[in-house]
Amino acid sequence: MADGAGFRENDLGVLSSRLLHAFQTELFQRLREQGFDDIVPRHGGVLAHLRPEGVRATDLARRSGQLKQVVGVIVDELESLKYVERRPDPVDRRAKLVVPTRRGRAQMRAATSIIADIMSRHEGALGADEFARFMATFKAVVDRQRAVTADDAAEQDLIR
Amino acid sequence: MADGAGFRENDLGVLSSRLLHAFQTELFQRLREQGFDDIVPRHGGVLAHLRPEGVRATDLARRSGQLKQVVGVIVDELESLKYVERRPDPVDRRAKLVVPTRRGRAQMRAATSIIADIMSRHEGALGADEFARFMATFKAVVDRQRAVTADDAAEQDLIR
Repeated sequence: MADGAGFRENDLGVLSSRLLHAFQTELFQRLREQGFDDIVPRHGGVLAHLRPEGVRATDLARRSGQLKQVVGVIVDELESLKYVERRPDPVDRRAKLVVPTRRGRAQMRAATSIIADIMSRHEGALGADEFARFMATFKAVVDRQRAVTADDAAEQDLIR
Repeated sequence: MADGAGFRENDLGVLSSRLLHAFQTELFQRLREQGFDDIVPRHGGVLAHLRPEGVRATDLARRSGQLKQVVGVIVDELESLKYVERRPDPVDRRAKLVVPTRRGRAQMRAATSIIADIMSRHEGALGADEFARFMATFKAVVDRQRAVTADDAAEQDLIR
């Protein structure tokens, strides 16, 4: 333990990182099989938070926990791939909404269906009660961890 | 639900991504306060899996679930920042080990201590029994999700 080996096999950072990578690997493999072969896991942080009516980039950053600059680059890429477009926000003409295109909405439906299947598989393996308990605790841990570092921490230049 | 909004607020991908980002934000803020101000969250996938005696790059990729190419770039950066060095593997002279330097070992000790504190905080909030149960289920879910996509999926070019 003194050298840090061992402990980190099972910490919340390592587990969340492994779960995210394995989840994304399956999701994007299955999306590719359905013809969405031009998007990759790092687009997932934006795709997961799209809404049919559009979302502001600042809200995408807050929901995903990623930096605004990182979200901006991903939105640029998804715009050039024709999954989203930027439109003026009807309630604030100076702001822009990120709105899914027809292809973007098709991707959202495909992802929802694949994810429901992944979730059902885990629910089946754990049993409904244990799965519900796990998900509720997971949400509580996420909320508590996010509360530790103030929202403005996400604005800092932690990623180069 | 038909449009995919709502559901993804709480899926395993969104929760693991939020937990990872919030965990890394706190960890790297506190590392920076202790003088490790030249490393950033994307280095975390390699730093978390170092061992004092060294680790092969292929093992770093497997343990983190990231692509070998991505791990290679991060190791290059950590080498230029003097946290690790590549040395010949004594059991296979053609292979290289990624070995932490003195500074790398100091970072490992600092990270271990910060992470123990983060984990204790969550344990205190949930209670020891519920925390132990949550962590055990989390590990089981991770193992099950990783088993779905074969190891060789990690070798595919899913990240551009």
